Amino acid sequence: MSCILMNTPVSIVQGASRGLGLQFCKTLLNQNKELLVIATCRNPDKAHELKVLESQNTSRLQIHQVDVRNESHINALSEFVKEKYGKVDLLINSAGMLHPSGKGETSLKDVSFEGLRSTFEVNTIGPLIMAKYFGPLLMKGGSTFGLRSEDTKVRHSAVLVNMSAKVGSISDNGLGGWYSYRMSKAALNMATKNLSIELGRGKNRVICVALHPGTVDTDLSRPYHKNVPKLFTTEYSVECLLNVINSLTVSDTGKYLTYDRSELQF
Amino acid sequence: MSCILMNTPVSIVQGASRGLGLQFCKTLLNQNKELLVIATCRNPDKAHELKVLESQNTSRLQIHQVDVRNESHINALSEFVKEKYGKVDLLINSAGMLHPSGKGETSLKDVSFEGLRSTFEVNTIGPLIMAKYFGPLLMKGGSTFGLRSEDTKVRHSAVLVNMSAKVGSISDNGLGGWYSYRMSKAALNMATKNLSIELGRGKNRVICVALHPGTVDTDLSRPYHKNVPKLFTTEYSVECLLNVINSLTVSDTGKYLTYDRSELQF
Ligand SMILES: NC(=O)c1ccc[n+]([C@@H]2O[C@H](COP(=O)([O-])OP(=O)(O)OC[C@H]3O[C@@H](n4cnc5c(N)ncnc54)[C@H](OP(=O)(O)O)[C@@H]3O)[C@@H](O)[C@H]2O)c1
Ligand SMILES: NC(=O)c1ccc[n+]([C@@H]2O[C@H](COP(=O)([O-])OP(=O)(O)OC[C@H]3O[C@@H](n4cnc5c(N)ncnc54)[C@H](OP(=O)(O)O)[C@@H]3O)[C@@H](O)[C@H]2O)c1
Repeated sequence: MSCILMNTPVSIVQGASRGLGLQFCKTLLNQNKELLVIATCRNPDKAHELKVLESQNTSRLQIHQVDVRNESHINALSEFVKEKYGKVDLLINSAGMLHPSGKGETSLKDVSFEGLRSTFEVNTIGPLIMAKYFGPLLMKGGSTFGLRSEDTKVRHSAVLVNMSAKVGSISDNGLGGWYSYRMSKAALNMATKNLSIELGRGKNRVICVALHPGTVDTDLSRPYHKNVPKLFTTEYSVECLLNVINSLTVSDTGKYLTYDRSELQF
Repeated sequence: MSCILMNTPVSIVQGASRGLGLQFCKTLLNQNKELLVIATCRNPDKAHELKVLESQNTSRLQIHQVDVRNESHINALSEFVKEKYGKVDLLINSAGMLHPSGKGETSLKDVSFEGLRSTFEVNTIGPLIMAKYFGPLLMKGGSTFGLRSEDTKVRHSAVLVNMSAKVGSISDNGLGGWYSYRMSKAALNMATKNLSIELGRGKNRVICVALHPGTVDTDLSRPYHKNVPKLFTTEYSVECLLNVINSLTVSDTGKYLTYDRSELQF
């Protein structure tokens, strides 16, 4: 039994109740019939669509309660996964917000200590704490995602994706505003770079990337939809992002890539 | 009386109890005999050297209690400065820490939610909240610091300095580790870029820069001194940094510069 479980590819989608996280679960289940998807969210009872998906995929989708601001939730899930599966092949940190108010700050007068702090907690600190607890399990993955390197001495075990955003690029920032969101994603990009170094040593390397999904039709972007010339569906964005994920090699680790695989500057 | 006060150049050094902040106060007082230095720290009673400096410069140095994690402290000081001087010519955000433990995280096992959160609060959120409250006063500065632009239509009123660090460069990060510190400084660099945009519109522009002081002999770097080939004295570093500050023009706003005025990539 445990031997069969060890061979099951395991993915974790953190922030799976809505938007891109939910769509990652759907598309992953569709694309790989062997894959187990562990979907986390802070309020499983309110994640109606995710629960429907679970009822349609009882053996392949599991919902676990994780509030990314709570290190003990993350620790508990990692203990469960370690015990039961012993490894993780793909971790996607998707939960994120513009600001607790739902809208990015237009100017300094909207900036507050509390708004900044909670945005960092959800967008930046949570994903890194996930990486802390799941790093050792990712190093035990079976390279289900990404391309094997031609150099057989540098092999990867798993892929870690932090959902970033193009507005997290400091050098590309021409408009300003959205203080909390921009700062939290710049810090997340640094976390991703650091992770790519720490989890990129030794024999079993974890490919770590920060991905920009395009501007996608979700609750997060809703207040700005009328200004977006090219609004992606979640289906399209996630298909593109999974193409990128499946094309990654160890030499891509630490990169900040868009849905069309172009590289962004930090 | 208030007319004389309005002509006094006013500087604020946030985090002035020790290290580079204290040295900025000393060197600023030495270099400009007209200048008022408003020195902030969280525990004035424990800031012995700063108190000695105040006793030697009673009319030119004021100590104010500001814990940068407390928005109401910052608001109160800004009300005082607005009432009394009506403007600020230079704001230096200097307070910072590697991590609450005093040492940067060597690897993921040292990373904690609490350590990340407090490092963001002191190194990133505090400086931005300072900018929120002092931005309007900086826009009323009299361009005492920095060079006037040759284009008379683009003039600057004041200079805002966020003390960053070279290890806050994402693209330059080759070693990893120091998660909290690196992430907090990358986020501070984004804040600086955003500030350069918001405070760079209109007639009275504030030049906003992120500065790297070199590796300097202070309590912050103490645990690592034995590995540093070129450890600067605070005197030398601050002299270099003030040379950089005095050489800034509006076209430098948003830049990430070292003590020797070379530009860093984000
Ligand atoms: N949509 C875009 O255009 C776009 C563009 C660039 C980057 N991104 C990034 O893509 C990722 C997914 O965004 P999305 O568009 O799918 O957003 P979304 O539809 O608004 O979904 C946000 C997800 O994050 C979770 N979340 C929000 N606040 C949380 C909190 N305080 N604690 C725990 N979980 C929380 C939500 O859970 P609940 O249901 O419990 O609230 C939900 O699952 C984010 O990291 C976002 O920054 C999106
Ligand atoms: N030294 C270097 O080699 C170096 C290199 C790159 C960048 N920097 C940057 O330069 C700046 C100054 O550093 P430094 O070397 O002068 O450090 P330092 O000698 O350790 O002084 C740190 C200052 O920050 C204040 N501070 C620390 N923790 C605080 C907290 N929790 N709340 C409020 N204030 C707090 C301290 O006040 P208390 O006395 O109350 O603790 C002190 O005034 C920092 O932003 C640092 O990141 C330094």
